Amino acid sequence: MSKVAILGFGVVGSGVAEVLRQNGPHIDQKVHAPVELKYILDVRDFPDSPFAPLVIHDFSIIEQDPEVDIVVETIGGAKIAREFTQRALTAGKSVVTSNKELVAKHGCELMELARKHNVSYLYEASVGGGIPIIRPLKQCLAANEITEICGILNGTTNYILTRMIRAGLGFDAALKEAQQNGYAEADPTADVEGHDACRKICILASLAFGRHIYPEQVSTEGIRGVSLADVAYADSCGRKIKLLGRAIQGTDGKIRAFVEPHLVSGENPLAGVEDVFNAITVRGNAIGDVMFYGRGAGKLPTASAVVADVMDAARNKDRPKYLDWGPGGEDVTMPSEDVTSRWYIRTESSTDTLRTAFEDVIPLARPGAPGGETAVLTPSMTRNELEEKLAQVQLQAVFRVLED
Amino acid sequence: MSKVAILGFGVVGSGVAEVLRQNGPHIDQKVHAPVELKYILDVRDFPDSPFAPLVIHDFSIIEQDPEVDIVVETIGGAKIAREFTQRALTAGKSVVTSNKELVAKHGCELMELARKHNVSYLYEASVGGGIPIIRPLKQCLAANEITEICGILNGTTNYILTRMIRAGLGFDAALKEAQQNGYAEADPTADVEGHDACRKICILASLAFGRHIYPEQVSTEGIRGVSLADVAYADSCGRKIKLLGRAIQGTDGKIRAFVEPHLVSGENPLAGVEDVFNAITVRGNAIGDVMFYGRGAGKLPTASAVVADVMDAARNKDRPKYLDWGPGGEDVTMPSEDVTSRWYIRTESSTDTLRTAFEDVIPLARPGAPGGETAVLTPSMTRNELEEKLAQVQLQAVFRVLED
Repeated sequence: MSKVAILGFGVVGSGVAEVLRQNGPHIDQKVHAPVELKYILDVRDFPDSPFAPLVIHDFSIIEQDPEVDIVVETIGGAKIAREFTQRALTAGKSVVTSNKELVAKHGCELMELARKHNVSYLYEASVGGGIPIIRPLKQCLAANEITEICGILNGTTNYILTRMIRAGLGFDAALKEAQQNGYAEADPTADVEGHDACRKICILASLAFGRHIYPEQVSTEGIRGVSLADVAYADSCGRKIKLLGRAIQGTDGKIRAFVEPHLVSGENPLAGVEDVFNAITVRGNAIGDVMFYGRGAGKLPTASAVVADVMDAARNKDRPKYLDWGPGGEDVTMPSEDVTSRWYIRTESSTDTLRTAFEDVIPLARPGAPGGETAVLTPSMTRNELEEKLAQVQLQAVFRVLED
Repeated sequence: MSKVAILGFGVVGSGVAEVLRQNGPHIDQKVHAPVELKYILDVRDFPDSPFAPLVIHDFSIIEQDPEVDIVVETIGGAKIAREFTQRALTAGKSVVTSNKELVAKHGCELMELARKHNVSYLYEASVGGGIPIIRPLKQCLAANEITEICGILNGTTNYILTRMIRAGLGFDAALKEAQQNGYAEADPTADVEGHDACRKICILASLAFGRHIYPEQVSTEGIRGVSLADVAYADSCGRKIKLLGRAIQGTDGKIRAFVEPHLVSGENPLAGVEDVFNAITVRGNAIGDVMFYGRGAGKLPTASAVVADVMDAARNKDRPKYLDWGPGGEDVTMPSEDVTSRWYIRTESSTDTLRTAFEDVIPLARPGAPGGETAVLTPSMTRNELEEKLAQVQLQAVFRVLED
């Protein structure tokens, strides 16, 4: 028998309650014991909810109730969520979370605390919503040395880019549509500026490479700089613009992690990932590339990942699972400047100026381009090399090209 | 410390030996104990192989060596492989396999034997080569009621279809090319006739729905009936022909499992799965659709999945993992005839005859079609309904259309 408390009755938290209720018999059967929701902690009351009788406002009731062995943290943020997580783990309760900000910022510390108290800290739902990625990365791909992780990790920006590409909407119009459809928040900063994708690549990279990688160690660029002109030029060379989170292990063993818009070839399966879907490609030295694809967000998909972790914690009470990694440090990462790639540039300089700078460029064309606008793909080089060559060039946009 | 014996030094078996050697330090570190290859059983000698000193010819040496705690079965087939698996499990050794035929035919019996002897029987590599699918299906999607599994499960046929679609090769020429590239065996029957895909959908469906589904319970049609004419008609309506293995749970709780060529819309991510790649889509009541994509075959990808299972068995010696299902029976499945879909038909009857039969059809066209050839998409109906309506029609080809 396991009793569960949910902290935070927002979108994901209420989804967890629903999945626990809806699939209850099925879950109990798979766990071989009942899994029962006992409390829901929130500052609000929910008098009209069928879960109203479970709602409480004081965390210490949960903390001090020895019957509660699993705490679901769906509060979000890294303040109160961190405090409650620490207190729950210290009280000997396993914690399951969908909170990517907390895992990306303090995962290592919380995993250590979980180990110390012989309980689990599980976070499958923190990346890719319901897409199974954390366990496959840790267990199924365990025989591989992972060399790169690359993914479309944020559904909001992927929706905006898809609408720009398919419907010809400008960035602002596409963002507005995303907000109207509930795919973007009123304050879209965390999504649009790439911070959400940054947190997710931190989690994946930490797990894959074994040491904590912090958001500050990931150079992060969002999609505000992507214009319809860039979408059209990308299309002219069979590519789509996608916001990718990447983590690459260099030959020096250090990790280059970054979030940037990329031009992705139509041949690459990532190019076909549209709307709010996410996809994560993992490259291993034995397996080659594998891709995980599905809804990267949304109430029930994310809740189902949380509940799978709850079931795992319930099944393994006497033997917690550790999906953890070692402490971070300055020696873990290197700036991504030395990662070579081809580059897309759009400029007011002439093709001749670019030819002089780069020797060899592929010029691109789009219908209706204003006079004087030039766009090209460069040969492969590091960002530093690129910037040297661009010293004389009037830049309007520059994005990486993902190697095919 | 774990000692491993490999049974069968063919493509996958030798790949396992290579991955164990190549990623050795990395593996030992993740298992927190050395994992050492002790024997390779084969009828042949391999005097030029670096593994020659490990090669033996008598299984009883392995069976009777108490040091060997993990046996890797990469023999294939369901005879000698079954006997050795039974003997290894009975001797208290965990068995890891890539043998889909054996798991599809006798998985339930072998899993019971493993439970009885408190050891693991693991088979991640039996489906989708190195693509992680068995554990994600069992663990990460555990909170879902699975309603359908649908996948491109055989790399050989997908390669042949891709070459027909992209290079305009006929079936025989594409098969020959696949054989020359090592993607098809000299006797391609198991792949081309759909038997390999059938075994894999048996394994996935058994795991997802909890009871053994046998190959005889899966209606299986291969790709020999697919012509370039069908490929062209499919293209004319934005679709691609793919061999899909599917298992669908009906409202009566029974499973309809089948392997058939389907017309897949270009909007569906499965349409973009080309060459020898595999992809498996799982539909759950909470998560919606998730897809797993990667190389479905090949020496190192498959070997890496085997080695991940070896590592899991090594880590969990005192507490074996059970990824098992219950016994099968006639009550588990229903014939797939009642699964509705739209249908593609190619015929020598006139469009008018088809309009009379179906009331509402979408006519298709292709360049260079001979006079009198007609192809249409029908409305959605069961196969039985279709066959009634087709009684008067001279059929050349009929394939299901996958709903978008």
